[in-house]
Amino acid sequence: MSYESANAPYLRNAWYIGAWDYELDKGILARTIMDEPIAFFRDAQGNAGAVEDRCCHRGAALTDGKIIETGLQCGYHGLVFDTKGKCVEIPGQDHIPPMANIKYYPVVEKQEFIWIWMGDPALADESKIIDWPYHKDGATPLPHCKDVLPFNANYLMLVDNLMDLTHLGFVHTKTIGGNALQHVNALMETSRTENGCKFSRWMLNSNPPPTYVKAAGFKGNVDRWLQFEYVAPCLVKQYSGAIDVGKNAQENQNQPGFHSHIIHCSTPQTKNSSFYIWSAAHGYRTDDPRATEELYGQLVPTFIEDVNMMASQQARIDRNPERPLVNIKADNALVHARRAFMAAYEAEQNQMRQAAE
Amino acid sequence: MSYESANAPYLRNAWYIGAWDYELDKGILARTIMDEPIAFFRDAQGNAGAVEDRCCHRGAALTDGKIIETGLQCGYHGLVFDTKGKCVEIPGQDHIPPMANIKYYPVVEKQEFIWIWMGDPALADESKIIDWPYHKDGATPLPHCKDVLPFNANYLMLVDNLMDLTHLGFVHTKTIGGNALQHVNALMETSRTENGCKFSRWMLNSNPPPTYVKAAGFKGNVDRWLQFEYVAPCLVKQYSGAIDVGKNAQENQNQPGFHSHIIHCSTPQTKNSSFYIWSAAHGYRTDDPRATEELYGQLVPTFIEDVNMMASQQARIDRNPERPLVNIKADNALVHARRAFMAAYEAEQNQMRQAAE
Amino acid sequence: MSYESANAPYLRNAWYIGAWDYELDKGILARTIMDEPIAFFRDAQGNAGAVEDRCCHRGAALTDGKIIETGLQCGYHGLVFDTKGKCVEIPGQDHIPPMANIKYYPVVEKQEFIWIWMGDPALADESKIIDWPYHKDGATPLPHCKDVLPFNANYLMLVDNLMDLTHLGFVHTKTIGGNALQHVNALMETSRTENGCKFSRWMLNSNPPPTYVKAAGFKGNVDRWLQFEYVAPCLVKQYSGAIDVGKNAQENQNQPGFHSHIIHCSTPQTKNSSFYIWSAAHGYRTDDPRATEELYGQLVPTFIEDVNMMASQQARIDRNPERPLVNIKADNALVHARRAFMAAYEAEQNQMRQAAE
Repeated sequence: MSYESANAPYLRNAWYIGAWDYELDKGILARTIMDEPIAFFRDAQGNAGAVEDRCCHRGAALTDGKIIETGLQCGYHGLVFDTKGKCVEIPGQDHIPPMANIKYYPVVEKQEFIWIWMGDPALADESKIIDWPYHKDGATPLPHCKDVLPFNANYLMLVDNLMDLTHLGFVHTKTIGGNALQHVNALMETSRTENGCKFSRWMLNSNPPPTYVKAAGFKGNVDRWLQFEYVAPCLVKQYSGAIDVGKNAQENQNQPGFHSHIIHCSTPQTKNSSFYIWSAAHGYRTDDPRATEELYGQLVPTFIEDVNMMASQQARIDRNPERPLVNIKADNALVHARRAFMAAYEAEQNQMRQAAE
Repeated sequence: MSYESANAPYLRNAWYIGAWDYELDKGILARTIMDEPIAFFRDAQGNAGAVEDRCCHRGAALTDGKIIETGLQCGYHGLVFDTKGKCVEIPGQDHIPPMANIKYYPVVEKQEFIWIWMGDPALADESKIIDWPYHKDGATPLPHCKDVLPFNANYLMLVDNLMDLTHLGFVHTKTIGGNALQHVNALMETSRTENGCKFSRWMLNSNPPPTYVKAAGFKGNVDRWLQFEYVAPCLVKQYSGAIDVGKNAQENQNQPGFHSHIIHCSTPQTKNSSFYIWSAAHGYRTDDPRATEELYGQLVPTFIEDVNMMASQQARIDRNPERPLVNIKADNALVHARRAFMAAYEAEQNQMRQAAE
Repeated sequence: MSYESANAPYLRNAWYIGAWDYELDKGILARTIMDEPIAFFRDAQGNAGAVEDRCCHRGAALTDGKIIETGLQCGYHGLVFDTKGKCVEIPGQDHIPPMANIKYYPVVEKQEFIWIWMGDPALADESKIIDWPYHKDGATPLPHCKDVLPFNANYLMLVDNLMDLTHLGFVHTKTIGGNALQHVNALMETSRTENGCKFSRWMLNSNPPPTYVKAAGFKGNVDRWLQFEYVAPCLVKQYSGAIDVGKNAQENQNQPGFHSHIIHCSTPQTKNSSFYIWSAAHGYRTDDPRATEELYGQLVPTFIEDVNMMASQQARIDRNPERPLVNIKADNALVHARRAFMAAYEAEQNQMRQAAE
């Protein structure tokens, strides 16, 4: 397994975004993560939980059941489970055997995210969950839109996509693309971080894209930046912005202009299918709900272009997953990200080997 | 292989309901049983037959052919086969080589059923076919409705479903369910039979379900019963009824009231898909065709609830067929039925081993 | 592997019809041949080419890209390839490493066909491409219609179909079939050729089919012929015609009447799916475009009957590809064709073995 490998393995001991808060508000949610069918739900007390989506009795899907006062009730013969997978009720009998309990997954609801831990529950450390200050209960909340987009590719394909922005001018010609050469030639700086890597691209004194003009009302040229940070295993934070030229944007980005903060998370469904879970906050026209709608209306078609490209790419790779790919100069940040991922993955493998000894 | 196993193996030396008589009246019928594509047909003389659905010449499906005077004619180059699989005609040549014969299955048409024998033709004993007196040519014919419903689960899942009626209050809340607790707490008596098991449930002095009132015009409470008999490998006879309280129903069920006689047969298509072949006769309002229509209109949505549940259940089980299920108290009759099935299956395996020695 | 085998293997060192000229005029064409996804395209200079449909960089499908001045450009990050698979451009870098080249297939555009060579490019000999004089740039061009019809069967199934015309009276009863017995009893002469075989069938003093009457205006009986030539691996030339009786048609076919020249080519997509690529020229009413439309309108439903039959046949064969088929007398030409194919296939296998030693 090398860092160039297209089909990344699963990293188990990590927090993943399993769902958005609003998805659980709508009822029981069936979602497969790492090949495991999971029932996400909120119990009658409002606590989020995630258990395997299979009743221990006759194998029925618990997501076909319903929430009652004591927990999640199977729709076939009525067994009830709590958010820790404990069987709390079997119709027609008083004794509940311990073998009737089912697998559960540690879940944390924080800042609108439903985080899920796919590895050993004993290692689930809430303090390792990232902070996203632009959401509810964050330090600097901003208006934002968010969604889930399933796609047919390995989860790290999305990280590859985001860490090589030269695709903007080819994939997104109809949406946010702009001039391909401008993106290819942007000033690029890449560096490692503790658990990932980041890059920033500056396009100084450049013509703002039409969407920026529409959003923030620029009259002339701008200093524009794109800052991306990859956090292993599969999260990318994006900070995009632009300020009128002549305001020393590189020294102080915190001035009126265009500001967006996007979190991109790729949650693995299977080896070659995933969920693109994203949120985008905006720091301009913060009192105007139409600004949020416009942002959503721009991002969704763009992300759909990406998922279509990734699905086409994955179909080719699935024909022969071991066949090498050829790296080019533009893959610099992508290679850093893959190396960071592989370091985390190998650390986990070592840990598991030691635990097994 | 234990009796708790969800995916039951095929029992070959047994009579299965392959089709209804009316299905063959409509023309050649393509149906796969135990993974074998079969062409069911009636020859020009009206005799039912079943042969493998593959012409020996170029492999064409015989169900794409047509019935002519001499038999079933292949639609590609015109070879003709009779109900015993014997090739009786090859266009352009007089000599018919014996290797041109194809596999056939013993078939018996009786009381509207087209029974098929999937095992060794030499063992096909017509006297072992059950009697269903409520159909044409039966001793006590009654008006009835009947149908075939394909479902995506192993064939014994339907037996499990029928032998544990505690599911009524959970699966059928929108249709025939009634009060879940009432079903859980009914008086239940289970016993073994020669080739299966049976149970009866009595709900004395109980409120009749709305469908019973509509069907039989009850004014007050009733003594109500549900009697189920499993006949290995995959047939369940159901007798449901109710009589006004105070008429000693437990001693004499043969009094005016609500009476229905249902036969449920599960014919295996593949390991995890089957046909639910059923008929329901009614002993009330026997001169009123609307009573039959009403019964059909109540049963079909109920059976669809069952097949949806079984498909969802099978999908989970297919992920890991060897993973154990947890039995509960309500599974008593189901466990008896599975044991009866496994006894029959093991007897067949022994017989085959001895024949091979 | 015997000549009766339904699933013929691939013969690699041969010219196949990969596409029609007009398909490339419409843009980049994605077509899988012998399990290999291929991007067919015309470069900006109009030259036809075929390369593997997978970018060496991140595996994206090149058919999602576009044609630019220098070649076929990947739609993900902009790499460009010429018709020989050579990478000629990588955005953001000057040096192009040789490992960035991708697989190409020799292609020849001739008489409206896009021929493709699936084997060793060093062996691709253009002089072996057949001549079809009825197309553009041919010696005796005629009005014609042409098309591509995908079908779900092994590519040699189509050859089998065409080399045993007794199917006409069974499969094509609704279209061109006519009397089954007439076809079964036609005068048939079969002979081997250098790389295949041919047969001719004469129906002297016979009633012309309605389509012949409509096309060529016959008033009475005709001498009618069907001449088929199989050219290994998967091409069949068909010459059908009819002339008024009493004109010595057998000695001189070149007289006014009904004349059609059809080329049937079967290009393998996978082991059990193929493309039926055909063209039909007519030598009657050559100035009337409606004659061409009528011919197309008759042939397409007929070919659809064939592909439906072949798909049904293949489905049976796929269940057990090694199970033998039973040959009948009418298979005479078919058996000759299969033998010619197997001789060519074995010659290629020997050649490969020798090359490997």
